[in-house]
Amino acid sequence: MIRSHESTVRVRYAETDQLGVGYHSNSLIWLEVGRVELCRALGFSYTDMEREDGLLLAVVEVNCRYLHPARYDDEVIVKAWVEKATTRGVRFGYEMRRAGDGRKLSTATTRHIFCGRDMRPMRLPEKYFRLFGVKRER
Amino acid sequence: MIRSHESTVRVRYAETDQLGVGYHSNSLIWLEVGRVELCRALGFSYTDMEREDGLLLAVVEVNCRYLHPARYDDEVIVKAWVEKATTRGVRFGYEMRRAGDGRKLSTATTRHIFCGRDMRPMRLPEKYFRLFGVKRER
Amino acid sequence: MIRSHESTVRVRYAETDQLGVGYHSNSLIWLEVGRVELCRALGFSYTDMEREDGLLLAVVEVNCRYLHPARYDDEVIVKAWVEKATTRGVRFGYEMRRAGDGRKLSTATTRHIFCGRDMRPMRLPEKYFRLFGVKRER
Amino acid sequence: MIRSHESTVRVRYAETDQLGVGYHSNSLIWLEVGRVELCRALGFSYTDMEREDGLLLAVVEVNCRYLHPARYDDEVIVKAWVEKATTRGVRFGYEMRRAGDGRKLSTATTRHIFCGRDMRPMRLPEKYFRLFGVKRER
Repeated sequence: MIRSHESTVRVRYAETDQLGVGYHSNSLIWLEVGRVELCRALGFSYTDMEREDGLLLAVVEVNCRYLHPARYDDEVIVKAWVEKATTRGVRFGYEMRRAGDGRKLSTATTRHIFCGRDMRPMRLPEKYFRLFGVKRER
Repeated sequence: MIRSHESTVRVRYAETDQLGVGYHSNSLIWLEVGRVELCRALGFSYTDMEREDGLLLAVVEVNCRYLHPARYDDEVIVKAWVEKATTRGVRFGYEMRRAGDGRKLSTATTRHIFCGRDMRPMRLPEKYFRLFGVKRER
Repeated sequence: MIRSHESTVRVRYAETDQLGVGYHSNSLIWLEVGRVELCRALGFSYTDMEREDGLLLAVVEVNCRYLHPARYDDEVIVKAWVEKATTRGVRFGYEMRRAGDGRKLSTATTRHIFCGRDMRPMRLPEKYFRLFGVKRER
Repeated sequence: MIRSHESTVRVRYAETDQLGVGYHSNSLIWLEVGRVELCRALGFSYTDMEREDGLLLAVVEVNCRYLHPARYDDEVIVKAWVEKATTRGVRFGYEMRRAGDGRKLSTATTRHIFCGRDMRPMRLPEKYFRLFGVKRER
């Protein structure tokens, strides 16, 4: 089973601020790119989860530590993995590094609960157990 | 009848770029603030249009001329008005000025077609004729 | 001395996502609005800090818990306060509520270090001690 | 000489709005990705232009026609080319298509003037003539 996945984003001009660095809220968008690509690498698409199964991963907590700023046009490698998952929710871990020199830019975790389209909590359908590494209860 | 409406936005740090000015795509978001507040001043809410009548104003064209950059923390006055409307669509005009010294920052137009929730063209419901200044046909 | 400050932001169309709620990274931008307005209420402007004293508040950590989603056009009240400050850095606390019914939407903290324009740590200039509630050392 | 260049962006969750489509202002950010990658394909980097030569491409006009909305996770191909350039400015043309079925999503032009770091107009340095296809005057 794939344990983690690395995606790459390039810092856009629109994502910089007047300090000349990537504005910090954009990191959360890059985390989402990492999370989505991790799921895709595991054989699942967010779109299908939402459209076919009405399964949403509502964000309930974000923690991000910024170690070093990203700059315009930097390639940022977003490494993402499932830290912990149950039938009710999942916590992802992340590490962002600059492609050029491998410098660590930030670390983060995001916590999500599984919801239906009505935004109410929903038990994870069995077909997704493998994706999130949830063990079948007996 | 109200002919035009002025709204104010303050340039956010996240909206600046590494040139130290407001990144140009954000102007389109400020135009939308101006458009929404114009409608509200005319007694209509975007939310109600969408929720109650399934009426959407799909953007089909944007033209924006940038005369002078906005800076962080500038108050920007967005003046918006209906330039032309029919039962099929509407064109809004805009002018953005800096509150401090009245300097003109940009002018713009956006063109929209009225759509239903299925994103297909829809004839403007009569209750909105007054809002957009559309004349009743006989 | 002012202990906390409340600012208001209105959720923009551009800030919603396809779930029909405010996309979570935008909360960090609203926190910044709250932080900036808190400083202004205390008599200091971010712009002056940066331009005149070369003092930057580099974000080193963000923690945000999402309790309830904000919706398009909701007015969100961002309450911000200084939780803790030293001559090296500051931690702000936040609470976001929906104006209409007072429902709590999220709580957050952001941690910053004081930096110069070169992005290197800098001791807080004495004139800002009052702003952040830092006590003079003897 | 390369006449046009195609870049690909994938529509991010943060870029959708509550209509379930890519919010229209994000197209301007994708245009910039196309513009930057066109320059890179021609052997020049925006960063170097700015850092080494103090050359900026200030946006003075944007025109964008939206034919069909992009959806979450769509791959969008941004084709960009230099439409016209002089020693004072440049106009880029763009066409955006969906990768899956080739459907045309939008067409656009952006007009820029060459500026120095002080944001004042600047004559294009000769080394960039080739990039923009500007002919040497005699």
